[in-house]
Amino acid sequence: MSNQKKYLEERRNRLYDLMARENIALVMFEDAEWRRDPAIRWLTGQPGDAALFLSVDRKSLLAPWDINLAKIYAQADYLVPYQDLDRRPLKALRAAIELHKIPPGSRIELPLNTSYTMFLKYVEEFADYDVICKTGGIHEAVGELRAVKDEEELRIYRKAVEITNEIIDLLEVNIRDGTLKTEADTALFIEAEGRRRDCEGVGFETLAANPSRSFGIHAFPTYTGLPFIGKGFSILDFGMKYSGYTTDVTLTFVREPLVKAQERTLNLVEQAAALAFSLVEEGADPRAIAQAVDAFFEESKQVMPHGLGHGIGLEAHEVPFLRSRSDSGITLQPGMIFTIEPGLYNPVLGGCRLENDILLTANGPELLTKSRIIRL
Amino acid sequence: MSNQKKYLEERRNRLYDLMARENIALVMFEDAEWRRDPAIRWLTGQPGDAALFLSVDRKSLLAPWDINLAKIYAQADYLVPYQDLDRRPLKALRAAIELHKIPPGSRIELPLNTSYTMFLKYVEEFADYDVICKTGGIHEAVGELRAVKDEEELRIYRKAVEITNEIIDLLEVNIRDGTLKTEADTALFIEAEGRRRDCEGVGFETLAANPSRSFGIHAFPTYTGLPFIGKGFSILDFGMKYSGYTTDVTLTFVREPLVKAQERTLNLVEQAAALAFSLVEEGADPRAIAQAVDAFFEESKQVMPHGLGHGIGLEAHEVPFLRSRSDSGITLQPGMIFTIEPGLYNPVLGGCRLENDILLTANGPELLTKSRIIRL
Repeated sequence: MSNQKKYLEERRNRLYDLMARENIALVMFEDAEWRRDPAIRWLTGQPGDAALFLSVDRKSLLAPWDINLAKIYAQADYLVPYQDLDRRPLKALRAAIELHKIPPGSRIELPLNTSYTMFLKYVEEFADYDVICKTGGIHEAVGELRAVKDEEELRIYRKAVEITNEIIDLLEVNIRDGTLKTEADTALFIEAEGRRRDCEGVGFETLAANPSRSFGIHAFPTYTGLPFIGKGFSILDFGMKYSGYTTDVTLTFVREPLVKAQERTLNLVEQAAALAFSLVEEGADPRAIAQAVDAFFEESKQVMPHGLGHGIGLEAHEVPFLRSRSDSGITLQPGMIFTIEPGLYNPVLGGCRLENDILLTANGPELLTKSRIIRL
Repeated sequence: MSNQKKYLEERRNRLYDLMARENIALVMFEDAEWRRDPAIRWLTGQPGDAALFLSVDRKSLLAPWDINLAKIYAQADYLVPYQDLDRRPLKALRAAIELHKIPPGSRIELPLNTSYTMFLKYVEEFADYDVICKTGGIHEAVGELRAVKDEEELRIYRKAVEITNEIIDLLEVNIRDGTLKTEADTALFIEAEGRRRDCEGVGFETLAANPSRSFGIHAFPTYTGLPFIGKGFSILDFGMKYSGYTTDVTLTFVREPLVKAQERTLNLVEQAAALAFSLVEEGADPRAIAQAVDAFFEESKQVMPHGLGHGIGLEAHEVPFLRSRSDSGITLQPGMIFTIEPGLYNPVLGGCRLENDILLTANGPELLTKSRIIRL
């Protein structure tokens, strides 16, 4: 049995155990254009659109949009082309109930993001079942399980990080020597170097913003044909996606001279990153770390208009979230990988952000990526 | 008043009229990471994350994540940083109710994709209002209004199409002469040529799949460092996004010799495209066109594993949908822009798809794009 297959089975087994404990007969997952759910890839290896059903009798049914891709990538006990179910989630659920012989009255858990209007249709169509959709259920548990990476995921992540760090070094060289001139040059260089290294691509649209545009938290447009470097702050935010898992880093490039307020901004951002890193430990409350950084900025009358960081994995943003405004009830645990990304933005001074990826190990935090503020 | 501002106002005015007719006091829109809704851009010009509230007293409140971007791009009567509302949709709705002085008992319409679990929270928090979330409401009406492009949108589309067609011609030249060698070369060439022409980027991840991978409806990975051209079918699917609006085309490149079954596939796909185009007219049922193409393929014992086409605009997939399996109740109308994209896929023979964008005018269908099957 391949390594990947073993880990996919282990993940499904953890869910089967949980379903038995929670008395859930069938759980449904859906990955579709307006309802992405990487849990399907995490559980079966299938990278794309599909519906997935796990039954408490420990069997999986996958209904992929592209059966040819699924035959290559997916591990499931049963495989049914989604077309044979008219690509309708209700029809797929009916097929799963019949295949798994789920007795009437059983509890069936729907995807957490099921819309209210769809939920009404499920309840009507499956009136003889106890159809549920709730926070604190199986789907949230999957999100929390996914937050703690297993050995297979850490192996993949080490590779994604290696590629990211190689590209960071290449970027510094090629920007210093003027090979990369425009925002588009820079973003496309990242994409090309990544694909050459067998990345699936970038984890999200690369943001490359020169000093006239770096005030945007997420620059719009993401990158243009304009020169990337100029006097002040240029922001570069990207992630490399390898075997489904993405890194997420932000560098700020600085062309001097800076005005005093810009020097202050830069120092505050670097200090905030160091402060946050120093607070990372097993059992820490991510909200408290975010609040500490907010308080640090507040001492200098600065406000960070976004969260401090977030988990990364099959999604660019996932559990745990390091935010000062919401209490997730989740503490930091060994195996979690997340960003720390303090930033300050000003329409006149520009924006400065420093983002790195951290793995919390049993021995404390490990700084995975080598993102930095680079003075040119 | 700028042209764009005039059209944004006209769009909001149509909604205000509809709200008055439907007795809706307040309607909420949300554009966030897991709940994208381009209606906010369509109504205000704001390209990114935000909550938007329209009140029946004909006032708009926009709560953007990035206030600096909103000050440049957005048209709204009131602008409040989403941070000031803790980035919580419930808090934003409370603020909108207070600002617009919505009397208790009024009908408030939530986003159509509001999850069941969130809906329960709204209902609890706003027990003194008639909170609704329904199909056939304002949000579905917006989707249908967006399907018929106005003059401003057609102006933008003409430009997006011009760029797309220029790039199609450049691709043919550069693939023929061997300048573009790998899938990644080809995809990055499209991205670079687009940004150079002031595109916001590509409308979706470009798919470039050589004959060993073209059997995938949506190739996975989307493109790689492998050679793009080889004996058989290579598929290239891309869209250029200009001022928010994306085109969507697919070319198939063919390196001969083909086996007989491949020649048959190619001819069937070209004939299906012509058949579909011939059926496009005002008042036509898009489902009937899709069914006609399915029937055509069936005569040759072939099955197309996806829909025939879809509307394009601020989204890569929007109303109208040309699908044989679902009846949307929507007929084709002048001003609609949509794709026609027949395709056949086989793990041994490879995949062949031909996709073009069609504008239905008062004088009949206009083939906007020049996508084609190119024999090398």
